[in-house]
Amino acid sequence: MKFSIERAALLKAVSQAQSVVERRNTIPILANVLIEADGSDVQFRATDLDIEVVDKAPAQVERAGATTVSAVTLHEIVRKLPDGALVTLTDDAATGRLTVEAGRSNFSLATLPREDFPVMASSEYTTNFGAPASVLRRLFDKSKFAISTEETRYYLNGVYMHLADSEDGRALRCVATDGHRLARIDAPLPDGAEGMPGVIVPRKTVGELRKLLDDDDMQIAVSVSETKVRFATPNITLTSKVIDGTFPDYSRVIPTGNTRKLEVDAADFAKAVDRVATVSSERSRAVKLQLDEDRLILSVNAPDSGAAEEELAVAYADERLEIGFNAKYLLEIASQVDRENAVFLFNSSGDPTLMREGTDTSAIYVVMPMRV
Amino acid sequence: MKFSIERAALLKAVSQAQSVVERRNTIPILANVLIEADGSDVQFRATDLDIEVVDKAPAQVERAGATTVSAVTLHEIVRKLPDGALVTLTDDAATGRLTVEAGRSNFSLATLPREDFPVMASSEYTTNFGAPASVLRRLFDKSKFAISTEETRYYLNGVYMHLADSEDGRALRCVATDGHRLARIDAPLPDGAEGMPGVIVPRKTVGELRKLLDDDDMQIAVSVSETKVRFATPNITLTSKVIDGTFPDYSRVIPTGNTRKLEVDAADFAKAVDRVATVSSERSRAVKLQLDEDRLILSVNAPDSGAAEEELAVAYADERLEIGFNAKYLLEIASQVDRENAVFLFNSSGDPTLMREGTDTSAIYVVMPMRV
Repeated sequence: MKFSIERAALLKAVSQAQSVVERRNTIPILANVLIEADGSDVQFRATDLDIEVVDKAPAQVERAGATTVSAVTLHEIVRKLPDGALVTLTDDAATGRLTVEAGRSNFSLATLPREDFPVMASSEYTTNFGAPASVLRRLFDKSKFAISTEETRYYLNGVYMHLADSEDGRALRCVATDGHRLARIDAPLPDGAEGMPGVIVPRKTVGELRKLLDDDDMQIAVSVSETKVRFATPNITLTSKVIDGTFPDYSRVIPTGNTRKLEVDAADFAKAVDRVATVSSERSRAVKLQLDEDRLILSVNAPDSGAAEEELAVAYADERLEIGFNAKYLLEIASQVDRENAVFLFNSSGDPTLMREGTDTSAIYVVMPMRV
Repeated sequence: MKFSIERAALLKAVSQAQSVVERRNTIPILANVLIEADGSDVQFRATDLDIEVVDKAPAQVERAGATTVSAVTLHEIVRKLPDGALVTLTDDAATGRLTVEAGRSNFSLATLPREDFPVMASSEYTTNFGAPASVLRRLFDKSKFAISTEETRYYLNGVYMHLADSEDGRALRCVATDGHRLARIDAPLPDGAEGMPGVIVPRKTVGELRKLLDDDDMQIAVSVSETKVRFATPNITLTSKVIDGTFPDYSRVIPTGNTRKLEVDAADFAKAVDRVATVSSERSRAVKLQLDEDRLILSVNAPDSGAAEEELAVAYADERLEIGFNAKYLLEIASQVDRENAVFLFNSSGDPTLMREGTDTSAIYVVMPMRV
């Protein structure tokens, strides 16, 4: 194998690959990236056995071939090469080394045989559709904060992507919850998505997927089977196993009869919550909301360190209510609101509370109260 | 005590104070800042028993007095208050609380009695002089990287500030070393500094001092005794115990007979060292320098991961030399050079090497070689 490639193109491809590689591996080859040169392209493939990313870059291929080298070392080398450099990679079968040359720099890296690299088995995908990057970004960005980190409830360690009937018709829906709060985000059903099986996309895959979604206009090819999900741009293909479990019936958690309505500027609300939470002890970050006519008083009482109180002008016309929440959960939910006022719908101080943006029901959040 | 103060002035004063406070304290009051309001000023004082910082800010003092509150909590609160807010602090002796009010926010913080706050005993300073912030910044910035972190050699855990005879006459000199490398930085002797006892300024003090030195034109009042050192701007006074020990006679370490001279662009050199070091294993980051006529080859050989080599065009007219260094040490030293070429003076591959900027002897560095 021998090819030359622009440093910028190489860096981009290797960056994506090395981020999938786990830093601590018991299987040495999982630390490596598989480089395959053929025709006018080079493919860089990395995997942690659950996720596989393949990144394709144009190159001047002089001799086709393939080998594997440490993803982290290759990435570090390329990162440190001067901008604009042309990099030549040559595989020497005799010594088992990969030579990386650029200008007057010369590196010789240990390789492992390509045959040992675990390429993910290809799947039969039952559903294939396209969606703009901006749509997928919204679905996952607004739901991922609620993913559970508790390993015992492994079926909550991801975003549940599935089809649903929303108030605006059939929808592609992403739901995440950790039992304390829940996010439910809808997007109009893309062409071809009908019939898609619901899948739980693991947290790490959601993180890797995010890197494919920066370009608003990019069309992402999504493929789904019962066991795998694949997201692809023209150059990058991200394939991931989905979590083998059943996502709980979240619809029972979403309150429908909450009538006490609070409308508040989301940014002001978040800042006030953040401020009053300053005095609370780390463990119980409970913030109390006292609602009265068009008035919200946020307060925290931490016997050791002190107390804090802040008043906000809000729209509230229902009867007096006192309810407590974890400050972190309130902050995270309020920071999801980017266009309009946050609308909170309460029932009693013991019931789950619903939050949405203005009248928009395509993104709703549920948060459990806590005793204060 | 009751006073009102601009949020920005309060934030600045409390920031400086809280950074001295140690996060983990067995003595509760050391987590607090002592606030003293009198006349038209408020003083914020914090200490870790070795360093004391006093920050003065103008305020509208309604009722003189003093109390202590958690430095970290007060800092967090002020940081989160809206820009431009006027903050009122009121001490309520009856409840033992300090009230912090700004707009519609209201905090009530636990206090500890001012009498318990350990104010550092004032000292007789034998030497008092003034120096521009830029001069002190250079002295400490260029030497601090070489401070030892080994607690057993506590007398190396700081920068040795003392007077010396340099090639350009009497000098205020800062030296730091960890036994592997050494930095020696000189500045012209300021008026009034003659007779100053040599003191070892602890690492943490060097860090805190740095925050006083951002403004080039600021004149810093320096006071030194056998046991303490004080740096003061009109608003901030930083007092620190010095390390009670004898700094070793470093002059014996500085080679005087090194004649093999290498001249190299410091930035190019640093980048090349960084690149070749990529393949080295974490533990022994040895880089080999091979010098030949006007040619430098940097190389690293790490049997496990690979090898790297890079050639640089340099000025070198002496006989062939091979010498090895710790990559980290070479990088740190090369990054001290900001104006001119780096000049390395070698003797043999087993002897300490000297580095300076061009012909400037007011900043010299020594680095021990390692076997490669």
